[in-house]
Amino acid sequence: MTTQHLVKRFDDELNKLDASLSEMGGLAEAQLAEALKALRERDTELAERVIRSDRRVDELEHNVQDQVVQLLALRQPMAVDLRQIVTSLKVSVALERIADYAKNISKRTLQLTPTQTPPRAISGVDRLGRLVQALLRDVLDALARADAVKARAVWERDVDIDDAYNGLVRELLTYMMEDVRTIGGCSQLMFMAKNIERIGDHTTNIAELLIYRLSGAQLEEARPRGT
Amino acid sequence: MTTQHLVKRFDDELNKLDASLSEMGGLAEAQLAEALKALRERDTELAERVIRSDRRVDELEHNVQDQVVQLLALRQPMAVDLRQIVTSLKVSVALERIADYAKNISKRTLQLTPTQTPPRAISGVDRLGRLVQALLRDVLDALARADAVKARAVWERDVDIDDAYNGLVRELLTYMMEDVRTIGGCSQLMFMAKNIERIGDHTTNIAELLIYRLSGAQLEEARPRGT
Repeated sequence: MTTQHLVKRFDDELNKLDASLSEMGGLAEAQLAEALKALRERDTELAERVIRSDRRVDELEHNVQDQVVQLLALRQPMAVDLRQIVTSLKVSVALERIADYAKNISKRTLQLTPTQTPPRAISGVDRLGRLVQALLRDVLDALARADAVKARAVWERDVDIDDAYNGLVRELLTYMMEDVRTIGGCSQLMFMAKNIERIGDHTTNIAELLIYRLSGAQLEEARPRGT
Repeated sequence: MTTQHLVKRFDDELNKLDASLSEMGGLAEAQLAEALKALRERDTELAERVIRSDRRVDELEHNVQDQVVQLLALRQPMAVDLRQIVTSLKVSVALERIADYAKNISKRTLQLTPTQTPPRAISGVDRLGRLVQALLRDVLDALARADAVKARAVWERDVDIDDAYNGLVRELLTYMMEDVRTIGGCSQLMFMAKNIERIGDHTTNIAELLIYRLSGAQLEEARPRGT
């Protein structure tokens, strides 16, 4: 095979890796959107579908790992290609977690008792979810376009999520104190809120990885993290 | 340089990577042990120390990533070496998360109001923590000795953690319903319990990665996961 052929093959393989990641990203995004819809509309069938489709994301994560190992074994990638491969592995881990959190939100949706869950509390969780959904959409967009500026903007918005999350937790505690019958439902919602906040965390993480991939620089500043 | 020299250098670098991981593992383990001690003994100074020392774990994670990229760029590792390098990267991510959860437990410890937190509830969280601590110790041990049998045993014990966690959450909900003044404290403890359960999850994950590193096989069976 000529060198040109080899280079083309390598590029094809890198593109395939990107395609797998982008499929994973699309799925994770859809999982979150549907998990929120299922919560909002108390749609148990949809919640069950979200739970089932998590398996595909897990498969893709294994798939990415195999591709990464293959690429590293058969090619000798350098610099930017190498960073792409290494960060792809980490991005796939983050996307798998995001889909897993969405699945968890749906599992909790199935356990909610309508009479014991104030509608206002559900709206609060949904609002936080939409904030994070927008962040996730932006980071996947940045990833698809290799856009470092957009990635940086996502990274900076994490603090908004943290503020919204903290406010929501305080609100949920109030509902619980006002009416003990809501304790079960509201604590489910608290965990859902936490899941969403974690999705935000992983989203920011993907932004960091993209910046590293494009520039080789690791963000040294501590990002303001809500915990 | 002779081939022998090159091989030796490569081995040295792999050993250095292992040493970084094992330092990370030791730190994560100590962070968890101290976070639990600070909770048990209401030791705010210790809790603050746990929060501060998380930074070192973050540094080491970056360090491992740099080593991995270097190793992949300068050597052309194959098969088992390559799997070691790739899994090291993922193990470092898991260890960073574990230390981060320990930090979060300490942050919450600082927010607990003694009069609003039933001592029985704290003991429950501490018990769960010790279960997971034992699991983490075993997986780090398995990692240090490259022991697949031990890794498999850790992987199978995850279900015990899930059961203990679910029982604890039910217990905490009861305290909250019995006395609304404990809602704030008990919901902090619920999140701590969740953090510990997640540490268990990451620990099992490390076991999976070790099995993959040693055998090349990804565990296909779905592991019973509490969510």
